[in-house]
Amino acid sequence: MNLDTIFSAAQEAFLTYKSISADKKAEFLEKIAEILEENRSAIVLMAGRESNLPEGRINGELGRTTGQIKLFASQVRDGSWVEATIDPADPTRTPLPKADIRRMLIPIGPVVVFGASNFPLAFSTAGGDTISALAAGCPVIYKGHPAHPDTSKFVGECISQAAEKCGIPAGVFTHVEGGVKMGQDLVKHPLAKAVAFTGSFGAGKSLFNIANDRKEPIPVYAEMGSVNPVFAFQGRLSNELVPLAQSYVSSLTLGSGQFCTNPGLIFVPRHLAANFESAVSEALQTAPSSPMLHEGIADSYYKALDNLQTRPELKWVKVPDAKHLINVSPALAEIKASDWIEDDIFQAEVFGSFALMVVYENENELLEVAKKLHGQLTITLWGDNAELKNQRELISLLEEKCGRLLFTGVPTGVEVGYAMQHGGPYPSTTDARSTSVGAHAIKRFARPIAFQDMPSALLPDALKDENPLGIVRQVNGKFTIERILS
Amino acid sequence: MNLDTIFSAAQEAFLTYKSISADKKAEFLEKIAEILEENRSAIVLMAGRESNLPEGRINGELGRTTGQIKLFASQVRDGSWVEATIDPADPTRTPLPKADIRRMLIPIGPVVVFGASNFPLAFSTAGGDTISALAAGCPVIYKGHPAHPDTSKFVGECISQAAEKCGIPAGVFTHVEGGVKMGQDLVKHPLAKAVAFTGSFGAGKSLFNIANDRKEPIPVYAEMGSVNPVFAFQGRLSNELVPLAQSYVSSLTLGSGQFCTNPGLIFVPRHLAANFESAVSEALQTAPSSPMLHEGIADSYYKALDNLQTRPELKWVKVPDAKHLINVSPALAEIKASDWIEDDIFQAEVFGSFALMVVYENENELLEVAKKLHGQLTITLWGDNAELKNQRELISLLEEKCGRLLFTGVPTGVEVGYAMQHGGPYPSTTDARSTSVGAHAIKRFARPIAFQDMPSALLPDALKDENPLGIVRQVNGKFTIERILS
Repeated sequence: MNLDTIFSAAQEAFLTYKSISADKKAEFLEKIAEILEENRSAIVLMAGRESNLPEGRINGELGRTTGQIKLFASQVRDGSWVEATIDPADPTRTPLPKADIRRMLIPIGPVVVFGASNFPLAFSTAGGDTISALAAGCPVIYKGHPAHPDTSKFVGECISQAAEKCGIPAGVFTHVEGGVKMGQDLVKHPLAKAVAFTGSFGAGKSLFNIANDRKEPIPVYAEMGSVNPVFAFQGRLSNELVPLAQSYVSSLTLGSGQFCTNPGLIFVPRHLAANFESAVSEALQTAPSSPMLHEGIADSYYKALDNLQTRPELKWVKVPDAKHLINVSPALAEIKASDWIEDDIFQAEVFGSFALMVVYENENELLEVAKKLHGQLTITLWGDNAELKNQRELISLLEEKCGRLLFTGVPTGVEVGYAMQHGGPYPSTTDARSTSVGAHAIKRFARPIAFQDMPSALLPDALKDENPLGIVRQVNGKFTIERILS
Repeated sequence: MNLDTIFSAAQEAFLTYKSISADKKAEFLEKIAEILEENRSAIVLMAGRESNLPEGRINGELGRTTGQIKLFASQVRDGSWVEATIDPADPTRTPLPKADIRRMLIPIGPVVVFGASNFPLAFSTAGGDTISALAAGCPVIYKGHPAHPDTSKFVGECISQAAEKCGIPAGVFTHVEGGVKMGQDLVKHPLAKAVAFTGSFGAGKSLFNIANDRKEPIPVYAEMGSVNPVFAFQGRLSNELVPLAQSYVSSLTLGSGQFCTNPGLIFVPRHLAANFESAVSEALQTAPSSPMLHEGIADSYYKALDNLQTRPELKWVKVPDAKHLINVSPALAEIKASDWIEDDIFQAEVFGSFALMVVYENENELLEVAKKLHGQLTITLWGDNAELKNQRELISLLEEKCGRLLFTGVPTGVEVGYAMQHGGPYPSTTDARSTSVGAHAIKRFARPIAFQDMPSALLPDALKDENPLGIVRQVNGKFTIERILS
């Protein structure tokens, strides 16, 4: 099939799919989850083989994938996500009568989704981007990630099967294979209305540029990762030094460090630096060398570290073990905050289990750090309540630099819920206004429309006087589930 | 003052301004409205002189401007616009305890706003873009439009006065003057976080490109206008032919046709075309030649018509009167739908009172028209209820092409309320996901952040357990004003 055929089918499917009921859409999503569960053992086997990720992790990731499908299904059934806003007519207003205006979010059209290598299920074929687009009412043209081709194709077939069983036109989902050129052609296609991507900065930025150079520019939601700094303050760090070091190392080495939220940067006060470093080093002893997703990623990890090893500002606490084709071991280096501030290279992401420990002399230095920091998916603050109260200025600066600010725990393990924000200022993503995880992700693939004086027979259910969907709406500025009295 | 000084002051002001209470922000906005009203006669005189717009219009526009300031003030006081979303912790969850996650919209930072020539007040210095940015908590660097320099500067001083009276740092608003180069430099400045613009396609698209070429790309909300097609169906048109023709001409010629929502394109059925054309021609007799905003705009109007007059597909019903330096008269030409479909030139906007009447043979032709149509701010359908019921397919296609779909009246006269959507698919704007009129405009200048396990003493009021602001929040997925029981 050529791309024109694929996109025409998607556009055709869109005009049907956008109009089917919320219940029907939710059933379709639930059917996808059901078919994935039915094929659990086959999928886990395939994804494990292709990604080198352990069975336990893949099993968990499949649960997360179907869990997130069910969350979107329930959101679609609930229906309030369309932000229905109604300003009823006022024919008696002077000098001019007021028209009836009703606004809601509608789906944007066919969406191009790129899967991520590091989550062969939860951020891939039936992952958050695909499902939130389908939930919004948009068909998806999905480009499988070449690192897990069989898993991708198989999961794609599960989605197509679900569409068939639910009587949804086949064009609602198309699985496409190919390399860089294919990805570019997908983004360039005139019928594409948005792009969702998770992966490297280079690839994401290049798709962003292509999308903006189109005759009709379209939104690109590229999640490109970050170094997810952790700021440790002395009160809490001195009280919990060993457990914090251990939890830091667990997060750093999880999945061979191949997480967008991997905490690659940690700020510690001078007088605790040596102790913390020892505790981290000790925890790292038990972190074995482990395989990466593919050889290219392992190679990039070693190259990035080779490059950093030429820098005199760094003191190496643990250099990586001898190079291996696919296995990597964690590494740890130390730098002074005053040196870190001087060169952006020290905040470049090294994909893998590399930690840069930045030693600060005093908390004023952290204000300079915060001003200099690039946009991040997450920032974590480890402080006790008393010392955090003195950090309001720092917290205010850090808010400007991230999508999620944590005060306990570690940034890995992104909760799928209503309140999650997974996305942050550039360069962590190309669009800080949206999230790629959690219920709010559905709004990426929608846009508002206002209907003025639309005959009631034509109004979408979400906007009808009687509120047949029972959704929360804003009527004359007030949130309510009441019907409109006319 | 150089731009670095201006932006540093704005950034500095931002860190204070974003944290002051909603009430304080609302008072500041209301103070702006109050000072503008106090200076009504001076402003009306100045704006009338600089824009050539009649006093009645300018008086009305000032009322609209202060009315919209009050709407945003009341929205800020209400506070629910931040979309507070709370997933409380669940320490008992297995296998892993659930963290406490709270999400809300926060202001994006300093915003660059460009005023429009055609609304010297409502879309200019204290217009929708400036006020919605200030309402969201963002400082504004405003570039005055050179077509009304005195008005712009004077209104800018009113805003600065209001800031001073309310104890808001002066950097919250800066009025800047200059040409194209200045505009580009503003968009290029590293501290700028978003751009709002109303004007021509050429200027808007060029700012969009500059913003995307920055080291850190930023959102551009450019409202670039459209031809706002009207589709007339035979049942309603035959019943109301003369009043519809008259209301069409009023809308077309309002303000010398210098409205973004000016209905420059109208589709009429073949067998009523001659009658409708006569009625329009007759109404046009009473539409006098009138001055445009400035000579450049008058010149562009005549040039565009000269260009169209070379096209054999057009039959001219009314050619413009002899050229004048600044006054223009309306013009009307007719074209067959089958010819219109063949060339995009026939849907290019002619800024001014030019109407292109497209004659269709049958309603199937309109489906082709809808597929071919560029993105529009508005589309209007004139049909009686019975005939609109048969147009579901057409309506579905037209939804994809506009931000507002009207079923009575004319598109000019954009209501300022909660439900208004003023914005549409490209090329009518560069971002169909937002509006430049109405309460939802505040969200342009905000982005989400999630706080995970934030100590309650640090939580913003919008996210505190006790809901001290009394706002509507989504807790565990349900909308409520209740406090969180912990």
